[in-house]
Amino acid sequence: MLKNLELFKKAKKMSFIDQSALPIEKNVIVTGDYREVADAICKLIIRGAPAIGVSAAMAVAVAARNEEASDVQELHKKVTAINEYLASTRPTAVNLFWALDKMKKSAEIALAECSTLEEYRIKLEEAAREIAAEDVVTNKTMADYAASLIKDGEVILTLCNDGVLCSVEYGTAGGAFVRAKEQGKNIKVYVQETRPLFQGARLTAWELQQEGIPYTVMSDSMAGYAFENKKISMVMLGADRITCNGDTANKIGTYTAAVLAKHHNVPFYVVAPSSTLDLTMKTGKEIEIEQRAAEEVTIINGKRIAPEGSNVLNPAFDVTPGELITGIITEKGIFKAPYNYENLKINLE
Amino acid sequence: MLKNLELFKKAKKMSFIDQSALPIEKNVIVTGDYREVADAICKLIIRGAPAIGVSAAMAVAVAARNEEASDVQELHKKVTAINEYLASTRPTAVNLFWALDKMKKSAEIALAECSTLEEYRIKLEEAAREIAAEDVVTNKTMADYAASLIKDGEVILTLCNDGVLCSVEYGTAGGAFVRAKEQGKNIKVYVQETRPLFQGARLTAWELQQEGIPYTVMSDSMAGYAFENKKISMVMLGADRITCNGDTANKIGTYTAAVLAKHHNVPFYVVAPSSTLDLTMKTGKEIEIEQRAAEEVTIINGKRIAPEGSNVLNPAFDVTPGELITGIITEKGIFKAPYNYENLKINLE
Repeated sequence: MLKNLELFKKAKKMSFIDQSALPIEKNVIVTGDYREVADAICKLIIRGAPAIGVSAAMAVAVAARNEEASDVQELHKKVTAINEYLASTRPTAVNLFWALDKMKKSAEIALAECSTLEEYRIKLEEAAREIAAEDVVTNKTMADYAASLIKDGEVILTLCNDGVLCSVEYGTAGGAFVRAKEQGKNIKVYVQETRPLFQGARLTAWELQQEGIPYTVMSDSMAGYAFENKKISMVMLGADRITCNGDTANKIGTYTAAVLAKHHNVPFYVVAPSSTLDLTMKTGKEIEIEQRAAEEVTIINGKRIAPEGSNVLNPAFDVTPGELITGIITEKGIFKAPYNYENLKINLE
Repeated sequence: MLKNLELFKKAKKMSFIDQSALPIEKNVIVTGDYREVADAICKLIIRGAPAIGVSAAMAVAVAARNEEASDVQELHKKVTAINEYLASTRPTAVNLFWALDKMKKSAEIALAECSTLEEYRIKLEEAAREIAAEDVVTNKTMADYAASLIKDGEVILTLCNDGVLCSVEYGTAGGAFVRAKEQGKNIKVYVQETRPLFQGARLTAWELQQEGIPYTVMSDSMAGYAFENKKISMVMLGADRITCNGDTANKIGTYTAAVLAKHHNVPFYVVAPSSTLDLTMKTGKEIEIEQRAAEEVTIINGKRIAPEGSNVLNPAFDVTPGELITGIITEKGIFKAPYNYENLKINLE
């Protein structure tokens, strides 16, 4: 199985796939500059909630290795500022803050325990490697739970990208499709192209093709048609932030798919690592939705598709109410409605 | 107000706006070749159900003027074949067949009544001009009925293009927005870009901008978000074919908008000339849905967005069940559910 993110020895450098060039080219970017990682997150060259978290953590370790300092205190000060800089890249995905918070805590422990720069740097590298290793285990476990819900012959609707590209290995919802196939189940996946940046058509289709899973690409506007004519029997996709009542922020278009699923009486599943759960938030109303540049909608491959001077809406995410979600699958298990703090807090343990 | 289609004197030529070049360029194509018109319909250079019908009728008249023949019988034979050729361009929009059928009947009358080529040609020109003039009156009347449903402050969701470009003047749903504005109502229109060919972003946004009506462009995947966050209070759009029970074929994505409207308890209106009603069909199951080339979805402005070898879905239309439609507005009035032959047949009179 393809591996996406990698932290090199004596973490001077890290690597990631340039997701903006897929499916035409597969370019692997190798860098020792945390600014390049931050920029890649902003520009969706690295994207997908788990991949954003792990790559930001790796970038902190790489920065700790490459920044010059005369003592641990000075390095720690720099690392703290870099951590904050990386946290400013994207506001909605909770995994980013979860991973950077872990790195911050590790850095504070290292500051207290380490007397040399080398010791401090090694501590941060270990912390980043642990986050990456945890992501692999988490995704495999989660994929197994999610695959247990997929029956032989299932026709699944998904959107955006929740496979290996959004994580280190396996992926979230995409991992479930791979596990279902490994279990010998015949499945078919309908992939919404996922405007404005086409992550479904570009990335999920590419992953499914690599895995030999039958899939069909379509425009987002065709989801209703697929429900009416192609016997969609399940919706399964990822999440960027989930609150106590199950309200889920995920790629724009998810809410529409959930309403279609409800209208057609089809189960709607969200697959995401427990780090996606934000139980400090009671409902989705508290989630800040990132509004992105108008040009992502109005200019495609360099050509304008809407008149200059148009008002444009471009939210990166929408919020699907918990009551439309049949089940939330994390590496801790399958959680079904009604969702509340008591029901979901097992994910925090 | 902008005029789209025009038939020139002694109908040697006709003109139409190249809709595929908008909003970047406004090119008017002038042609005396019916094959060019047929090609333009196939390639969506001319599109929108009423515009397709009227331009096909004009193309018959233009062909009758330009084809050589030694007598009326010979010309009629050629015109009949050309009529059939034009009917083969697109299968879903009923107006095409309605208009060509009118031209066919006029040609048969002309064959019986006319002794010279000139008389025959004039008859067909008159018939095409009558269809165009009827379209203008029809659309204005229809727009007035539809505008009566629009309240001051209405926030309207629409998709594809139902304005002046899809007709000779005014348009269907787009005409209603213009009339509402003329009546002094403040309205706001959310326009889905309408993948795969972006008729909403390219054409409807352009029309609304010309008319000074406030609008916002968004990807189709953002319709649910707009319902959740932007207080959409009405959906109003066009139709390509309506059957006895109100089942409506319209641009792909319409069905999804209807399901969202139902979920949010918002009225959903279809505006279309009575020629769109096909009361020979009991339900939408009988409607043939045009499946278009995969490349419309997978290649945008020359760049591939999905891996080669992908299965692709590209239906041009979907069918919205009559029970999701609050009202159908034609030039004969406002029709509300339940729809049936008795209820809708006034449109045939």
